[in-house]
Amino acid sequence: MASVCTVYTIQSLNSTSSISTPTKTNLGFNQKQVIFYRKTSQTKRNNNYSTPCLVTCSAADKTVVIGLAADSGCGKSTFMRRLTSVFGGAAEPPKGGNPDSNTLISDMTTVICLDDYHSLDRTGRKEKGVTALDPKANDFDLMYEQVKALKEGVPVEKPIYNHVSGLLDPPELIKPPKILVIEGLHPMFDSRVRDLLDFSIYLDISNEVKFAWKIQRDMAERGHSLESIKASIEARKPDFEAYIDPQKQYADAVIEVLPTQLIPDDNGGKILRVRLIQKEGVKNFNPVYLFDEGSTISWIPCGRKLTCSYPGIKFAYGPESYYGNEVSVVEMDGQFDRLDELIYVESHLSNLSTKFYGEVTQQMLKHSDFPGSSNGTGLFQTIIGMKIRELYEQLTSSKTAVPLQASKA
Amino acid sequence: MASVCTVYTIQSLNSTSSISTPTKTNLGFNQKQVIFYRKTSQTKRNNNYSTPCLVTCSAADKTVVIGLAADSGCGKSTFMRRLTSVFGGAAEPPKGGNPDSNTLISDMTTVICLDDYHSLDRTGRKEKGVTALDPKANDFDLMYEQVKALKEGVPVEKPIYNHVSGLLDPPELIKPPKILVIEGLHPMFDSRVRDLLDFSIYLDISNEVKFAWKIQRDMAERGHSLESIKASIEARKPDFEAYIDPQKQYADAVIEVLPTQLIPDDNGGKILRVRLIQKEGVKNFNPVYLFDEGSTISWIPCGRKLTCSYPGIKFAYGPESYYGNEVSVVEMDGQFDRLDELIYVESHLSNLSTKFYGEVTQQMLKHSDFPGSSNGTGLFQTIIGMKIRELYEQLTSSKTAVPLQASKA
Repeated sequence: MASVCTVYTIQSLNSTSSISTPTKTNLGFNQKQVIFYRKTSQTKRNNNYSTPCLVTCSAADKTVVIGLAADSGCGKSTFMRRLTSVFGGAAEPPKGGNPDSNTLISDMTTVICLDDYHSLDRTGRKEKGVTALDPKANDFDLMYEQVKALKEGVPVEKPIYNHVSGLLDPPELIKPPKILVIEGLHPMFDSRVRDLLDFSIYLDISNEVKFAWKIQRDMAERGHSLESIKASIEARKPDFEAYIDPQKQYADAVIEVLPTQLIPDDNGGKILRVRLIQKEGVKNFNPVYLFDEGSTISWIPCGRKLTCSYPGIKFAYGPESYYGNEVSVVEMDGQFDRLDELIYVESHLSNLSTKFYGEVTQQMLKHSDFPGSSNGTGLFQTIIGMKIRELYEQLTSSKTAVPLQASKA
Repeated sequence: MASVCTVYTIQSLNSTSSISTPTKTNLGFNQKQVIFYRKTSQTKRNNNYSTPCLVTCSAADKTVVIGLAADSGCGKSTFMRRLTSVFGGAAEPPKGGNPDSNTLISDMTTVICLDDYHSLDRTGRKEKGVTALDPKANDFDLMYEQVKALKEGVPVEKPIYNHVSGLLDPPELIKPPKILVIEGLHPMFDSRVRDLLDFSIYLDISNEVKFAWKIQRDMAERGHSLESIKASIEARKPDFEAYIDPQKQYADAVIEVLPTQLIPDDNGGKILRVRLIQKEGVKNFNPVYLFDEGSTISWIPCGRKLTCSYPGIKFAYGPESYYGNEVSVVEMDGQFDRLDELIYVESHLSNLSTKFYGEVTQQMLKHSDFPGSSNGTGLFQTIIGMKIRELYEQLTSSKTAVPLQASKA
């Protein structure tokens, strides 16, 4: 099947032009040149959807789009700081803009929060009796159009949801970055948005751990009662299970956070069993493995070479089926006592996509103060950072090398 | 502590001289030259006994002595054939001798059966009411003196226990080989004999498997009744547990054969779980390991690269304590379906002491008709063969390189 493709030249990045509600067939901005091609072969992503084909004319103008889904308070911001660090920068809010902006910008990455696509503000949600988790409270048409525009190299005027006031603030200008991360509750909910993603991640915190963390934060730090915490979790559950949780079936990588199995019946949320579930057959993504690719392995590195304090560390690796997809799972239960344990572990993992020996350890050491640095959440977030860097490099280098097979219509 | 050492020149191998009952301080044979040395440093083996120090004057005249302990019918002869094959020859009974000789000779190895040191023949045992397992039915003084003489390069006239007649036949001449294997019920029972061993192996067949094997052989092939098999096993048990089983604590390597754990409650003895228990800290013996030395690992190689039929294959590796000794255990449960699985497994084992990539697989293929070739017994017997070859080479090369630190008394 042939599909009609549109080729844009570079949209000047300092252009003030932008779109907030572009039409699907013709974007209303001052493009320099538009050429129509009929492509000879179909471009396919890893899912079975045929995505609109965009052939851009320079290496600089394609934005790689990453989706990161998770419940609020599940470590998305830590993940973003780790990811940004892999690319060698620190993320900051847009300069001179709304101080309540949820956007974070670094040299390579722009992270936008999907709460900005709430169609109902706090009052509106209350009036209609819907939660922020409900798709009805979110504008997926706008989300799709703006993510699509950014992916095509077109700046957008993105709304801002003000978490402090609960209101929708005036929009801010988002320029197409090299890597766009859309993080929030629904990056993989709408199939049109999902199809725009070059890579997708779901942070899956088990109910036990979520509960333990909320108790820690809301009870110990904010003085809430155990009952009110339980009630608020229960209230969120139906919508979470209906709209958020099902997205994990679409994720290329899921980081699953569970209570440890090293201590029987431990639900304290201090020692974690973390699983990195990696979809097989995803282009430009080669799953990490332990010792022997495709086999089933458990590994307790503690022994003659490595001394671990109670309850120790246990890794596991193997192929599994996840929502009908073939996946490879690397699991870490327990936590690191010392930094030299990390390099020992790193040296036994393969396909890490590091640039040099020990890079994962170096990144972890650099941010040893981040939450999860001593357990699998930090380790796997860092590894996923490496994977996204590799994916970005492969997508952009393959793009420059794209042969001009297309012929004029 | 200094010990008095005796240095012999080569005892001519075609000499007709021999000893059957040498004294401990002065051997009665026509030695060419005897020199007494006082050694400046103590020679230690891996156990804490100080062994008599023998400094020989040429690389050709030291015999490496291997002890192999097991109950009768536990695969010792298969093991011997595998070991002999590693050294590149086939073992045969001494030419022109007693056709009922238990001895097997190849270019490199001579295997003597310790049944030849029975001090009581079948009638004698019956009269005194002792089994062949009982030390009282065995002449450990003669065993010690003859093994010691052979180790020192001195031929001996070894008795022959005739398994057919149950009588002690006239002795046969055994010349000192490069490698002497003493196999039977008691190679590690007498501490003097034990101290002569350069390496010791115990084949430990669990009662369940032993029972399944005996049923297969004695019931199916020889027409014995189930009751008589049970009775004969029960009758052997007390002496076995008193005199044979305790020797495994002294073994440098134990091959433990157990029912599979892949099929719940399987005692059929067809699919086996085999454990290679390797003592740590034994000179010239570096235990085999899986993936990561000193850690604890389980590995199911069946998966994307390897398809296994039910119930599959499972390997395990890890440090353990065995009779108070630190050991490393490699375990294989299940059996190989195809030969290419073996090279896959071999490529993931380390410290195999092979001369080239795939040598273990090659040996196993060569003798695919031997019992146990599809499971861990064949694999670990072959590996122990490689280990003994390495040990032999290290002992003989280190011997030639021994500096003459000794000073004349």
